[in-house]
Amino acid sequence: MPRRIVIIGAHAAGVDAASAARKTDRTAEITLMTKQKHAGYSPCGIPFALGGHIPSFEKLIVFSPPYFRMMKLRLMLETTATNIDTKNKTVETEDKTGRQETLQYDSLIIATGAFPFIPPIKGREKQGIQVLRTIEDGKKIDEAINNGAISAVVMGAGLIGLETAVALQERGLRTTVVELLPQILPAMLDADMAKNVQEMLEEKGINIMVSNGVEEFLGTDRVTGIIAGGEQISADLIVAAFGIRANTELAKKAGIAIGETRGIKTSMRMETNVEDVYAAGDCVESINMVTQRPTLCQLGTAAVRQAKVAGINAAGGYAIFHGVLGSAVTKLFDTEIGVTGLTEFFAKKAGLETVIGKITSKTRPEYYPGGLPIKIKLVVEKESQRIVGAQIIGGEQVTQRIHALSFAMQKQMTVRELAKADTAYAPPLNETWEPMVLAAEMALRKL
Amino acid sequence: MPRRIVIIGAHAAGVDAASAARKTDRTAEITLMTKQKHAGYSPCGIPFALGGHIPSFEKLIVFSPPYFRMMKLRLMLETTATNIDTKNKTVETEDKTGRQETLQYDSLIIATGAFPFIPPIKGREKQGIQVLRTIEDGKKIDEAINNGAISAVVMGAGLIGLETAVALQERGLRTTVVELLPQILPAMLDADMAKNVQEMLEEKGINIMVSNGVEEFLGTDRVTGIIAGGEQISADLIVAAFGIRANTELAKKAGIAIGETRGIKTSMRMETNVEDVYAAGDCVESINMVTQRPTLCQLGTAAVRQAKVAGINAAGGYAIFHGVLGSAVTKLFDTEIGVTGLTEFFAKKAGLETVIGKITSKTRPEYYPGGLPIKIKLVVEKESQRIVGAQIIGGEQVTQRIHALSFAMQKQMTVRELAKADTAYAPPLNETWEPMVLAAEMALRKL
Repeated sequence: MPRRIVIIGAHAAGVDAASAARKTDRTAEITLMTKQKHAGYSPCGIPFALGGHIPSFEKLIVFSPPYFRMMKLRLMLETTATNIDTKNKTVETEDKTGRQETLQYDSLIIATGAFPFIPPIKGREKQGIQVLRTIEDGKKIDEAINNGAISAVVMGAGLIGLETAVALQERGLRTTVVELLPQILPAMLDADMAKNVQEMLEEKGINIMVSNGVEEFLGTDRVTGIIAGGEQISADLIVAAFGIRANTELAKKAGIAIGETRGIKTSMRMETNVEDVYAAGDCVESINMVTQRPTLCQLGTAAVRQAKVAGINAAGGYAIFHGVLGSAVTKLFDTEIGVTGLTEFFAKKAGLETVIGKITSKTRPEYYPGGLPIKIKLVVEKESQRIVGAQIIGGEQVTQRIHALSFAMQKQMTVRELAKADTAYAPPLNETWEPMVLAAEMALRKL
Repeated sequence: MPRRIVIIGAHAAGVDAASAARKTDRTAEITLMTKQKHAGYSPCGIPFALGGHIPSFEKLIVFSPPYFRMMKLRLMLETTATNIDTKNKTVETEDKTGRQETLQYDSLIIATGAFPFIPPIKGREKQGIQVLRTIEDGKKIDEAINNGAISAVVMGAGLIGLETAVALQERGLRTTVVELLPQILPAMLDADMAKNVQEMLEEKGINIMVSNGVEEFLGTDRVTGIIAGGEQISADLIVAAFGIRANTELAKKAGIAIGETRGIKTSMRMETNVEDVYAAGDCVESINMVTQRPTLCQLGTAAVRQAKVAGINAAGGYAIFHGVLGSAVTKLFDTEIGVTGLTEFFAKKAGLETVIGKITSKTRPEYYPGGLPIKIKLVVEKESQRIVGAQIIGGEQVTQRIHALSFAMQKQMTVRELAKADTAYAPPLNETWEPMVLAAEMALRKL
């Protein structure tokens, strides 16, 4: 009898888990489900589609119906998993018409993702507080703009909040970002680096209010503005980007252990405390490779890596997941921003003593036209001299530098080794002395 | 009495050695000399200045006279070192007016570089065979173009040869490249990868003849063409880019040991077999970090790293040089090309058994406009599963991927570890599954 694999979720983690399972077991019966209308699309692309860089939201669908057919995956759209019975190994589902079905599984993968969180602020029950998580969310905002919205407030200055704010500004809306903490991108950058990004965004016309919590949603039954920092801000579009929370209700109800980070706990094989039940993506917690402590990573790249491991194991194969460094990048207007490992702030919070190597350089030699500024901050653990984190802001070439430093950290490179690295150079492409190496030298001086 | 440091050479290696020496010893008397009119310029930029990407050749001068004054370095231009006496610790010099001077040194750094080599081909004594090594060389070619040259032959399809051919083609010359070996970029790429670059260059209109040695230089006293592959090729410009040879005559004469690669042998401190005599740059041999064997690296990035070590040690400090991976990049038209470590060919030659991971991907997701093709080839040693080399050809983002793989190799990353790497992603910047990781997976399948 073929192995029955059920996957709750059909986005980054769900589809990658299904694909890995199919490659591991050619005869397994694999079923995926999602509450949404579309499966297998790239949620990371939504702000960029909204901003007009991607021709349509539908383009974001990376895995279209023919893919599921080719891989012999049963895809249930607009279907909710209502219950998991780990004893009888069943998942109960209900589709939008109310039709219920009980699926029997040999292996189960929970890839329920995360949901946008709105704090208990006065007036939160009002209509029209818009989140940006799904293609439908993106389309709603797009429609509002097409219908004449000319101003927006984005609550939260994390990655999604800022990417959305940039998109709205690019679409011509007068945009304000409100952030409770004293800096933007608090999970990604230290305050000194974030300041550069904030200044750039302000120059582009976005109004940014840091150290300002949202105190109230205004309007009768439909939200028409907010109060933040004592100030009343009216806007046609009110976007909530406070952050996301792991979607763990279903797992909890089924007796699956949740970790201290409020994500689902798994082994290195991505197996939960319940045998044959795996989990992957935004709903799970991971081990941070630097601190060796659990963390909620909730990035697409981590999701697909976890999903692959879960899919292989669920299909009877063997694979392990080593943890995360939290490497993340984005592009806001023409500025690229990246991080890997710990910021100085989070390193301190984890009890590490650090030294910093910080450098501002250019992406090409002075004599070659078109070079753009680049700023690198390295966080180095003092005793081991190991690089434990890096932040980069630049006009180009940020992502692959983040990769270089991620690889270095994965192999526990010391800052002294980085200062001796064998780098490559050509005038149209970069400087003779690579800025990462110069940042390492700056850190070395303090050791 | 202040320490007297003499440096023969005042380009990449010479100036970086002088700067490092100055930072190590603030009171030393530091003297540099060069035969040339200009010191401290970037020779790597010459083809790009010729191509019109850099406004003038003078822009290439990275270290101008004020720098030498600020760093209190005595710079002797158009001055030749004629003899080294290691017993009496003197260097004899002669300037263009014939004026001689004997310099006393406590430490000497030989940074005599390399010279363009022309094989003993019939007619080699003829006038007008042009090389491209110095600013003067670049200006001569520029002048010839301004005076109406409309066709060119470049002999040699190495980095300098191709960068020059591209510049000439960009300036509107009908350009032919002749290469003795059966592929272009033989020191940098394997034949399968080189083929892609050759096709791109041919599409841009450059005529490329591989497997064709130059048999004769034609013309009465001035060269007017060549014979290659039995074919007569006339051209207004005949450029020799056969390769370079380490400039070691002076060192040899002084009894300084030369290695099997015909470069000057040094310790890890960049000290030659003669005490207090150091060497750095294109004239020295280095240890290849993969093969642990001597190699001639002759790249600007290696030169400045060696020079820094030599300068620190010559000034009484302590630093060591760990060797080279030979990381190199260039940009030919809109295509970026990079290498680090060994090609498949050179790995085989070094006795390594390898497996290959090769992938063609794009620099952005399908749905994000503007993505460019990228091709990655990983060379993996079979027993240790370590990455021993990588070649990348792409429309963008090649250099920093070369750095990522260089860092990985420096830390002896296995291809299995690379397949698990923590990468970052955002739609405008790259794909969810990083092509380097996909290439690692391709290699893993063969292990």
